[in-house]
Amino acid sequence: MEIIKSKKEMQAKALAWRKDGKSIGFAPTMGYLHAGHLSLFAQARKENDIVVASIFVNPMQFGPQEDYDAYPRDLERDSRLCAENGVDCLFAPDKAEMYEADFATYVQVEGLDNYLCGASRPGHFRGVTTVVMKLFAICQPNRTYFGQKDIQQLTILQRMVGDLDLPLEIRMVPTQREADGLAISSRNVFLSEAERKQAPAIYQSLALAQKLINEGEKDVDIIIEMASNHLHKNAPLGHIDYLQIVDAAKLDPLLKIEKPLVIATAVKMPGARLIDNIYMK
Amino acid sequence: MEIIKSKKEMQAKALAWRKDGKSIGFAPTMGYLHAGHLSLFAQARKENDIVVASIFVNPMQFGPQEDYDAYPRDLERDSRLCAENGVDCLFAPDKAEMYEADFATYVQVEGLDNYLCGASRPGHFRGVTTVVMKLFAICQPNRTYFGQKDIQQLTILQRMVGDLDLPLEIRMVPTQREADGLAISSRNVFLSEAERKQAPAIYQSLALAQKLINEGEKDVDIIIEMASNHLHKNAPLGHIDYLQIVDAAKLDPLLKIEKPLVIATAVKMPGARLIDNIYMK
Repeated sequence: MEIIKSKKEMQAKALAWRKDGKSIGFAPTMGYLHAGHLSLFAQARKENDIVVASIFVNPMQFGPQEDYDAYPRDLERDSRLCAENGVDCLFAPDKAEMYEADFATYVQVEGLDNYLCGASRPGHFRGVTTVVMKLFAICQPNRTYFGQKDIQQLTILQRMVGDLDLPLEIRMVPTQREADGLAISSRNVFLSEAERKQAPAIYQSLALAQKLINEGEKDVDIIIEMASNHLHKNAPLGHIDYLQIVDAAKLDPLLKIEKPLVIATAVKMPGARLIDNIYMK
Repeated sequence: MEIIKSKKEMQAKALAWRKDGKSIGFAPTMGYLHAGHLSLFAQARKENDIVVASIFVNPMQFGPQEDYDAYPRDLERDSRLCAENGVDCLFAPDKAEMYEADFATYVQVEGLDNYLCGASRPGHFRGVTTVVMKLFAICQPNRTYFGQKDIQQLTILQRMVGDLDLPLEIRMVPTQREADGLAISSRNVFLSEAERKQAPAIYQSLALAQKLINEGEKDVDIIIEMASNHLHKNAPLGHIDYLQIVDAAKLDPLLKIEKPLVIATAVKMPGARLIDNIYMK
């Protein structure tokens, strides 16, 4: 497996593959790879001739109070995991390679970032759409792979791709979970033992909401209240940033249950802010 | 020559050409073609296997008080001119084809739109960068052609292409002029006879500024004053929106003469707002 740090080199290689008629599957990541990322690579491997992964901790999507500097990094281990999991080419640029000093261009999807994580992370999704647009231009994918855990990111990117007529597909890959249900995340390493013990209540609360909906409960407030109660009781170390049932396309909170919908939550533990969701078609 | 109205069809065709190893030269226009556009096609014809032109009067780049509805249109004549001037394929979508009802994605180059036309046309360049990004995705050009007359547009698009790592080139084609020096523009048809008679003073005033710089004048204020005086005297029907000497890359007004620079002006005649510029390397 080749590791490329130069964007010009990566782009030349990708354009040559496309000219040769090869399809490119692409999974952009921030590294510190886990089973969630590996599932992206596995699906990309099945559906494309070439699999490209990228590792770039994108400063533009972190707020000034957020964990950019602390975000875990381990390129050596990540490279090995990529090579062992079907990646043909790893693009791992540094910050200066991605952003010139006079960088001034931003891609923004308006509206969808008012909700869920967007409400408490101003500028975050603008940072995501901008860097992903760059990565798409550099890596020239036919298909791209994103985890369901970051469903708002995925929904916003889908809108971006549609609105800007980009000739590629965005594929949603199911969230990978620990045996106790906790969504796998690079940030889980920041949890204390006590927090880690309580963290499975996050997914349990979403699953409870799902069960209520499946049983025919139509009152959003009742569902949210029961799910929140479960979370408060079983994860007292967590502060609920949001726990909402939203329209799957618009991401705005539903007044009554109507599918497709997403039950989504963000919980601030002392060690890390964790997100999770369940999609109901 | 083929005329295509569907973006999916245009994109499929463009991707197939690229896969076949053919280079695509692309000139996006708002139609009502004149000698300026034809010079874009001619240069694209020289440098590429396939020449694609587009005609789309982009509502997003017109302000609420601007001339979107009045903007001149003549697709039949334009198609003939394209066919006669080396265009292989004309992409002419309608508004609904380009913008879905829930369109929400914008591309913006920050900073460069504070100056020149950007100062009096808020949102204009965001409309330009957004539609051009879409047209690039649809038409998949290797090289794109823009007229020097719209130099701010060109400078902003160059920054967008660089910042977003788009694998294409932006080529600047010299402004085409009438025999008396007036920059050719689709909006010239709106000028009354009296306005048309005065309009050559616009380019004359820029040429005067250029002459003063060539003769060694370093004082920006003196140069601007002399050029403005010429314009006021010889085009009394015009109101000067701006007449400035700016840095060619940053577009901010220069305090002292330093090349590369642009001498640029916008003049509001009763019938139309006209722009022109001289680039000094």
